[in-house]
Amino acid sequence: MSGGLDPSDWAAFRALAHRALDETLDAVDGIRERPPWRAIPDEVRAAIGADPLPRAPSDLAAVYAAFATQVAPFAVDNRHPRFFGWVHGAGTPVGILAEMLAAGMNANVGGRDHAAVEIERRVIRWWCEVFGLPPTAGGILTSGTSMANLIGVLVARRAAGGAEVRTAGVPAALGLTGYASTEAHGSVARAFDVAGLGSAALRAVPVDAKLRLDVRALHARIAADRDAGKRPFVIVGTAGSASSGAVDDLVALADCARDRGLWFHVDGAFGALAQLAPELRGLVAGIERADSIAFDLHKWLHVPYGAGAVLVRDGALHASAFADHAPYLARAQRGTAAGDPWFTDFGPELSRGFRALSVWFTMKTYGLDRFGELIAQQCAMARALGERIVATPPLALLAPVTLNVVCFRYAAPLDDAECDALNARIVVELQERGIAVPSTTRIGGKLAIRLNVMNHRTTQADLDATLDAVPAIARELLE
Amino acid sequence: MSGGLDPSDWAAFRALAHRALDETLDAVDGIRERPPWRAIPDEVRAAIGADPLPRAPSDLAAVYAAFATQVAPFAVDNRHPRFFGWVHGAGTPVGILAEMLAAGMNANVGGRDHAAVEIERRVIRWWCEVFGLPPTAGGILTSGTSMANLIGVLVARRAAGGAEVRTAGVPAALGLTGYASTEAHGSVARAFDVAGLGSAALRAVPVDAKLRLDVRALHARIAADRDAGKRPFVIVGTAGSASSGAVDDLVALADCARDRGLWFHVDGAFGALAQLAPELRGLVAGIERADSIAFDLHKWLHVPYGAGAVLVRDGALHASAFADHAPYLARAQRGTAAGDPWFTDFGPELSRGFRALSVWFTMKTYGLDRFGELIAQQCAMARALGERIVATPPLALLAPVTLNVVCFRYAAPLDDAECDALNARIVVELQERGIAVPSTTRIGGKLAIRLNVMNHRTTQADLDATLDAVPAIARELLE
Repeated sequence: MSGGLDPSDWAAFRALAHRALDETLDAVDGIRERPPWRAIPDEVRAAIGADPLPRAPSDLAAVYAAFATQVAPFAVDNRHPRFFGWVHGAGTPVGILAEMLAAGMNANVGGRDHAAVEIERRVIRWWCEVFGLPPTAGGILTSGTSMANLIGVLVARRAAGGAEVRTAGVPAALGLTGYASTEAHGSVARAFDVAGLGSAALRAVPVDAKLRLDVRALHARIAADRDAGKRPFVIVGTAGSASSGAVDDLVALADCARDRGLWFHVDGAFGALAQLAPELRGLVAGIERADSIAFDLHKWLHVPYGAGAVLVRDGALHASAFADHAPYLARAQRGTAAGDPWFTDFGPELSRGFRALSVWFTMKTYGLDRFGELIAQQCAMARALGERIVATPPLALLAPVTLNVVCFRYAAPLDDAECDALNARIVVELQERGIAVPSTTRIGGKLAIRLNVMNHRTTQADLDATLDAVPAIARELLE
Repeated sequence: MSGGLDPSDWAAFRALAHRALDETLDAVDGIRERPPWRAIPDEVRAAIGADPLPRAPSDLAAVYAAFATQVAPFAVDNRHPRFFGWVHGAGTPVGILAEMLAAGMNANVGGRDHAAVEIERRVIRWWCEVFGLPPTAGGILTSGTSMANLIGVLVARRAAGGAEVRTAGVPAALGLTGYASTEAHGSVARAFDVAGLGSAALRAVPVDAKLRLDVRALHARIAADRDAGKRPFVIVGTAGSASSGAVDDLVALADCARDRGLWFHVDGAFGALAQLAPELRGLVAGIERADSIAFDLHKWLHVPYGAGAVLVRDGALHASAFADHAPYLARAQRGTAAGDPWFTDFGPELSRGFRALSVWFTMKTYGLDRFGELIAQQCAMARALGERIVATPPLALLAPVTLNVVCFRYAAPLDDAECDALNARIVVELQERGIAVPSTTRIGGKLAIRLNVMNHRTTQADLDATLDAVPAIARELLE
């Protein structure tokens, strides 16, 4: 082969790569010098959009320059200490290092016998230990909790429907129904949709005043479905709802699932990691009784996007929901094709990147106790913020602060729609002025300003500055 | 917050990161000095497996040292010029650089208004142009073709079943059936399984002598299913089968789909990229008529794992198969939450990493013409290898060389099972001796030694050395 894709001038490549590494770390180290978000200028958006299909090569330095001027400055900067939107992890320098190493190895962790597979196995085992699952449990890393919830639902579907559900499909006559609260994440209903059960087969159970699944309503709904000839098969508990951080009573849900012979899946996208903090662990008590647990590593573990995991108590059942040995993926006793079972046996992906390396580096370097401390501190800051909001009318707290999410609004003497619009506008102003990035949600129909206190760089001063800006902007907008 | 997760000593962190970068590039630059695979020593496997749950922190340098001694040396080294197993891309230094930059930004490309989203949009548009899809087409990057095939099947399911299929599930009465060849990749049947249609609803249509879907058999099977009250809804064409690189007659499949009102999906995991080589483009003619196309970017584009894509001719229909607006993901006209539609509207993932950056860097730096040249050269080398095998009995070519995959075996005068075992053992010896890494498959029931000629570092000498070793090892084993 006359010249592959390696550089003809390695020295020049290395020089550029080292410069890019320095500038990458500069951006993290100097994060406070920039706003947490800024709009893409029209000319930049147009330049990206007008860039023609690259048939011919370009100088790498020119491509890097385009990245540095058109891409890097216009981030949704979840690295920033005043980024409070949605549920975004902040990343760490250790994660950057690990991703660079993973890209260097370029391992396909779908299977075969190599160290990357062993690292993912180790990481999965560690998390099984964190959540108190038995040695027969297993799991797999995913791109995030959406895929992890899908895998959980598919294993539960396999448990309820038997092996033939994989070949013959989901018989409507089976009438499989599942249960989650009205506050459950949309990815759970989407998993029902994808899995051919239909999102309506996931019953949306009402919540109590703390926005937790109402267990009495759950019992009633399961009984009603059984009376109607349906076959309830899974209860999905939420540990940390996306809107407000609410945590269902997982012990009650585990009891209900046990008594009725249902699968118990926990969507713990971020809340599951409360398990790492001794002062918060009680909130997620019962998670150790789950049949499957889905959670993210790019949120409260701050691993780079996208990394999540699903753990399944019965590892053999997990494999029975996915394993499928094509002749070109035959396993061997020796050589490169050894290492059975392969990770392709535990999820829908056949080629898979080395997501485990950044998880392994992060867990080992910082230690899980450190994450427990940070999570506890962030939840304490969120509770204090909630108390300050309660004490500062017309600010109004819209949901109890269970974990790290604070939902509130400026309760101006306006009608509901006007007040919603005012608060949506406050959020836009906070973002556009570069003060902070909250997101919005709706609590009891009301639009809420939503702060997710998760970033390890966030200080009390960052929260104070953000909250101080709200009444000031509100008064300005009302004038 | 008293101390987040940023280094207390940035200078020390930077020094380590620069050293790690150099060693990462050294490993690529010196790839020929190592074997393409070596078994993990028992003591290393035991050390990884005995590593206790890390509660306390560790020095980053110690973690890096563990990586450098326990992980990096024991790769399935698809970077290596004599790695011919499965269908693995080789990676590039440009990809390593881009992944480092992406990890630095730590963007969540699920949605919102930021440059990473614009880059993914651009990349998708470029690929639509490559395949001749109209401006109304769209798509999304995935972790690979398995997920891309799943998305294709879900959009086809939505097209056939209407909006209610998402909420009410897949009615068995609808009798949806799909069609792919017996050589189609297992991820297509798995997509049917996951989607609740059941893998048996994907009819395995026989192949012709070139291992291409037999179009007459397809017509007959569709007619038989219609007569039996089924509802045929999708034809899946294979552009580059995993076993032998066979390419279906996509024009005939497009005609069949058009005439019968079926969705036409192309699984082009690696073969779709033949489109980039003028001398090979005719092989995939008809791909421009597909309703959806799934392909990998970590294979013949050598982007780091895992990156693939799915393109859908009808972008609006694509969104209708996934879009679902939860209150905590509300779109705004201004600010950070602008940018509708979001990529969460086009697939099952809600959090998504910045896979697009390495694709963008790779396409721009090398230019697509360069990939076309490499692909054409590799296919020419594979054809020449096939000719050499035919001319060198008892080596026997087991499948026509359509693209870059060569399936052959040492046809010793043994019974079938013994000959299978001999060839499986030859593959293990090639791997364990560090000569080369082929994989195996079965062609017409016979175990084949399978070489995938895809690595941009592979030379004719690498192929010659590999092929020369086969009779030598065979004779040694037969003695």
